[in-house]
Amino acid sequence: MALESFIQVLPDSHFSIQNLPYGAFKPQPTASARLATAIGDYVLDLSEIAKAGLFNGPVLSSSDCFLQPTLNNFLALGRPAWKEARSTLQKLLSSSEPTLRDNADLRQKSLVPMSTVELVIPIEIGDYTDFYSSMHHAKNCGTIFRGPQNAIPPNWFHLPIAYHGRASSIVISGTDINRPRGQGHPTGQSPPYFGPSLKLDFELEMAAVVGPGNELGKSIDVNEAADHIFGLLLMNDWSARDIQAWEYVPLGPFLGKSFGTTISPWIVTLDALEPFSCDAPKQDPHPLPYLAEKISKNYDIELEVQIKPSGQKDSCVVTRSNFKNLYWTLTQQIAHHTINGCNLRPGDLLGTGTISGPEPESFGCMLEHTWNGQKPLQLNGTTRKFLEDGDEVIITGCCKGDGYNVGFGTCAGKVLPSRD
Amino acid sequence: MALESFIQVLPDSHFSIQNLPYGAFKPQPTASARLATAIGDYVLDLSEIAKAGLFNGPVLSSSDCFLQPTLNNFLALGRPAWKEARSTLQKLLSSSEPTLRDNADLRQKSLVPMSTVELVIPIEIGDYTDFYSSMHHAKNCGTIFRGPQNAIPPNWFHLPIAYHGRASSIVISGTDINRPRGQGHPTGQSPPYFGPSLKLDFELEMAAVVGPGNELGKSIDVNEAADHIFGLLLMNDWSARDIQAWEYVPLGPFLGKSFGTTISPWIVTLDALEPFSCDAPKQDPHPLPYLAEKISKNYDIELEVQIKPSGQKDSCVVTRSNFKNLYWTLTQQIAHHTINGCNLRPGDLLGTGTISGPEPESFGCMLEHTWNGQKPLQLNGTTRKFLEDGDEVIITGCCKGDGYNVGFGTCAGKVLPSRD
Ligand SMILES: [Ca+2]
Ligand SMILES: [Ca+2]
Ligand SMILES: [Mg+2]
Ligand SMILES: [Mg+2]
Ligand code: NI
Repeated sequence: MALESFIQVLPDSHFSIQNLPYGAFKPQPTASARLATAIGDYVLDLSEIAKAGLFNGPVLSSSDCFLQPTLNNFLALGRPAWKEARSTLQKLLSSSEPTLRDNADLRQKSLVPMSTVELVIPIEIGDYTDFYSSMHHAKNCGTIFRGPQNAIPPNWFHLPIAYHGRASSIVISGTDINRPRGQGHPTGQSPPYFGPSLKLDFELEMAAVVGPGNELGKSIDVNEAADHIFGLLLMNDWSARDIQAWEYVPLGPFLGKSFGTTISPWIVTLDALEPFSCDAPKQDPHPLPYLAEKISKNYDIELEVQIKPSGQKDSCVVTRSNFKNLYWTLTQQIAHHTINGCNLRPGDLLGTGTISGPEPESFGCMLEHTWNGQKPLQLNGTTRKFLEDGDEVIITGCCKGDGYNVGFGTCAGKVLPSRD
Repeated sequence: MALESFIQVLPDSHFSIQNLPYGAFKPQPTASARLATAIGDYVLDLSEIAKAGLFNGPVLSSSDCFLQPTLNNFLALGRPAWKEARSTLQKLLSSSEPTLRDNADLRQKSLVPMSTVELVIPIEIGDYTDFYSSMHHAKNCGTIFRGPQNAIPPNWFHLPIAYHGRASSIVISGTDINRPRGQGHPTGQSPPYFGPSLKLDFELEMAAVVGPGNELGKSIDVNEAADHIFGLLLMNDWSARDIQAWEYVPLGPFLGKSFGTTISPWIVTLDALEPFSCDAPKQDPHPLPYLAEKISKNYDIELEVQIKPSGQKDSCVVTRSNFKNLYWTLTQQIAHHTINGCNLRPGDLLGTGTISGPEPESFGCMLEHTWNGQKPLQLNGTTRKFLEDGDEVIITGCCKGDGYNVGFGTCAGKVLPSRD
């Protein structure tokens, strides 16, 4: 029988004792942030657990990492600290362990209903990188933008392509997103369009949170790269396709992306995801030695995107995909990112790129779904070529275990009109 | 006659009392950083000036911004604070003012020979953006990479093209740079090259340091954008042309750039540069309204690049250019960067892109100078297609006033072999 907590965890809850993701919350709007884990419908305040002296293992007993407002110091400590914290918390929350269960005062101080607190981003993100690692997405976008002959560029199968993203505009789930204004691709000889984007899109992604990282000038070996990944979260890389199409040659996406990127509040650790690991796809051509790993792993994470159209009560599933659709693995992404000596720092975010599967129902953005607006989506009796003001996009992700879930919660955001 | 300091400033010094750039230094290697200005051969420790209560104007008297290890809080205060600090420091250092001049104890504590301290980066850089604003550079690179027919892409004259850069690998002048390893463009049907870059290059750039910035979702008006620029510094955007050429389609430069970017230690304020402002080039086509500014300003800043070839004692001038060669202005860059609602934060860095002029002697990188290695450069009796291990690149920049300089010092870095 699976490990159980003394805290009630309903069967469809994402936050079982097998999960224990990391986040941060503010008890009151003006308070400073506290680190937390999630269990059932509660957050467990890790600063209270630390102050009670319960992180008493060899690595964490001398650290004040859980008294900080962000996870960055904890991330820098690496996997021994992460394993120790997980084992401490799993024991503390288990039904057979009296320490917290039978201490009313500590329970009162440390367990807070999730619905009463404001969740905040638990990491300071120094740099955010976005990869492009789903073959189906690359093929679909390439066909739409450059035609079927040049769909997937020749470099794609040799390296995990990526670009630097904008760290400042990363926001937490629940934050409204203003429709960006900008220049859109001109038609024929006319001047470029200017105004609110006419092709606002979502992108279904996940992102890895970097652990210790590397010194500038040194690379991370692909077979050691897993030790630099703390965990994963859900991400919506909002994209303005008309702005992107006009600006991206030759230096890549810029304003078509930088107006906002939404992330889910909870980081699910690789240790919690380990039971859901699976083989990564076979790669042909065989990657260069620095990308050729002994064990090539993906994770079986079911992903779903719903859109709640403006003015409607119900949302509508538009995409069902899975993390295992990725061609390039997280560890290959890390090895590639650092092969030139580029330093990763604790808290850096590495987006996977849009996670599309082979079938239309699994396409991870509207550009693909509607084939650049040519085939509108049917949603609860209304239609969409791209997102309209008032539309809300809700991403969820979950691993289904035997009698428990290891889930990511939701990553949601509503589109508001342009400002000014 | 020009304002003079009681501190000796030699005629060729970059750091006159008209300049007063901002930086940071460590008195000893283990000490925390202190903010400073430069005057002649000295740094003036601003934390000592603040502790002595001499920042006594209306904005700064109640602020602890000069007791911080970075300028970010000062940057957030905006132009009124910057003007007040400049006027306080200019008065304090002038030959006619006794407050510091005749206070031996305070002079002893606050004035330190620059040669005895370690200068460090004075800002926490949240995001780094690199523009592409020299027409000559865009034309030369485009011709080399895509041929003369498609040299300048059609979007270039409509918007200041840019990409997100990597903040983690920005280093201060004097830091050695390891040659990056990576995949280079394959020839014909052969697999991609892998190994140390064979086409390591410098890029002569300057960068703007952002002041207050904007809230996510709101844009900065082009006519108010100057209030969001604190000052400028010199930048070498090291570039691996073989890595860049293979990776950059379709998402732009990534590992070809992210292995290192060198900046000069001193930020010269826009207020100090004002006497050297000049008209920006006429723009055709006329820019869209959000980029059309009432006053379109450049700055007359003489720029020079020298290379000291490996094993040699003397360096050799390879480029003489000028900041006024830029087509897009700093204020247009800010207006464009934020038109989609992207938020700029205090301390963000905006690179200009390589500053090439029209003549070959003014080309700002080796790619252009050697036309991608076809015409080697002559250097002190040796030749270079691209940089070799042991080569040092030294950028300087200076505005020549009447009897004084407003200079940027140097931005230097030496190439070391790849590690691992
Ligand atoms: Ca993306
Ligand atoms: Ca550049
Ligand atoms: Mg985005
Ligand atoms: Mg660089
Ligand atoms: Ni960044």
